[in-house]
Amino acid sequence: MIIIGEKINATRKSIAAAIEARDAEHILKTAADQVAAGADYLDINGGDPDPKRELENVRWLVELVQGRLDVPLCIDSANAEAMAAGLELARSKPILNSITLEANRLAAFEPIVAERECMVVALLMADEGMPTGVEDRLERAGKLIERLTALGKRPEDIIVDPCFLPLSAQPGSGRAVCEAIARIRSEFPGVHVGGGLSNASYGLPQRRLVNLAMVAAAVAAGMDVAIIDPTAPQMLPMVLAAEVVSGADEWCANYIAAYREGRLQQ
Amino acid sequence: MIIIGEKINATRKSIAAAIEARDAEHILKTAADQVAAGADYLDINGGDPDPKRELENVRWLVELVQGRLDVPLCIDSANAEAMAAGLELARSKPILNSITLEANRLAAFEPIVAERECMVVALLMADEGMPTGVEDRLERAGKLIERLTALGKRPEDIIVDPCFLPLSAQPGSGRAVCEAIARIRSEFPGVHVGGGLSNASYGLPQRRLVNLAMVAAAVAAGMDVAIIDPTAPQMLPMVLAAEVVSGADEWCANYIAAYREGRLQQ
Repeated sequence: MIIIGEKINATRKSIAAAIEARDAEHILKTAADQVAAGADYLDINGGDPDPKRELENVRWLVELVQGRLDVPLCIDSANAEAMAAGLELARSKPILNSITLEANRLAAFEPIVAERECMVVALLMADEGMPTGVEDRLERAGKLIERLTALGKRPEDIIVDPCFLPLSAQPGSGRAVCEAIARIRSEFPGVHVGGGLSNASYGLPQRRLVNLAMVAAAVAAGMDVAIIDPTAPQMLPMVLAAEVVSGADEWCANYIAAYREGRLQQ
Repeated sequence: MIIIGEKINATRKSIAAAIEARDAEHILKTAADQVAAGADYLDINGGDPDPKRELENVRWLVELVQGRLDVPLCIDSANAEAMAAGLELARSKPILNSITLEANRLAAFEPIVAERECMVVALLMADEGMPTGVEDRLERAGKLIERLTALGKRPEDIIVDPCFLPLSAQPGSGRAVCEAIARIRSEFPGVHVGGGLSNASYGLPQRRLVNLAMVAAAVAAGMDVAIIDPTAPQMLPMVLAAEVVSGADEWCANYIAAYREGRLQQ
């Protein structure tokens, strides 16, 4: 399981304010807390309506976090310039988050993917809009994997994001996502599957609880990359328990080790 | 979702002691707590190595619980005499838990199923042993549904129990169970699917957490009957959240109602 800490994201008010004010300590604390909680990567999103400002934000964030912590980064942007800059500064092997089938985004991101040694999140969005079921997710995954393979990516460098949608607006989408996860893992061997699932609980009360149910169902179906808040109560214990359910944690070795280290008692 | 409270079960030490001592107050408190927590039915298991003693236990338990509470019962026994006696005393429409494909059990239980107006748990055990994957679960479900239909049961009276196995001993069985749940719901329309899942966490630390992950994954896959401890922290909130994930709770109406009534904040 690869855990990507989602919290350094300019769509969060406190992070946007910290970026605006260049409040290094707030960002570094958010980064360190996620690593301490078990993040393998940190997502870095410096989104701003002004593309030049976003570019500056991403550079500042990447240098700031890497200056203090030895953790690989996941550069999260729809802006090709900011993405290229972030990946260029990133040490070790970063993750590009994300390429999609949208024609403009694909054209802008393919050269970056071709040039930079990185993992790539392949989000199943297209010009036709969000995916609606299992079959269109499979078809889009196939197309994106083909494009990425043509650019030299190996299956293990590709993370297919099945596109978690707000359950309040798209009833049944959680089950379709889980079925798509299982099918993608089985039909495209070696490819990772996962993404940001907090979107699923959008618009609902007690979002924490819906996120826990969604992560348990998705991991049990075979999801092996999670873009989550690893500091959320019970989130990592639930991921570990769901890997016991799926059988990914064969003989429950990780789960039992986590128990012995006190990591299940949040 | 049908919630069956699992706690009045003689395999639990405190319950066995209360049955032995004919401690009515302990049993009644266990019963009332489960109903208050949201149980739609109460499981009644008076198991004893001595079949005559079990028969007496079941009679005592059924009359005791029904004397105080207006809740339908789920009679849980492998002993045909105790089962027949329990069902006979049970008011309203009880659940028989369970019939299996084991030849002796089938022969002993079929006459009871034919005689008594009841729902039936069809547990996918057979003389060959426990099920091992998805296909054998589907095949066994088909056989049991055929037998029960021949005895006059309608699909909505049948609850197929996919047989939750200890995940510590059977890696991957959780995923097979979830896939079987989805397939049974789709291939045998109208039939309920569910059962006792606490078995899944047998032998593991922090069983509560594994039970929560298992229930979330199973409900997200389409399980609509759960034999659980409804008083366990977060158990019912997790079931409700997982029904949002599966889409069974269309437009999240139950989830939002539960939130407004304060039932998610356990």
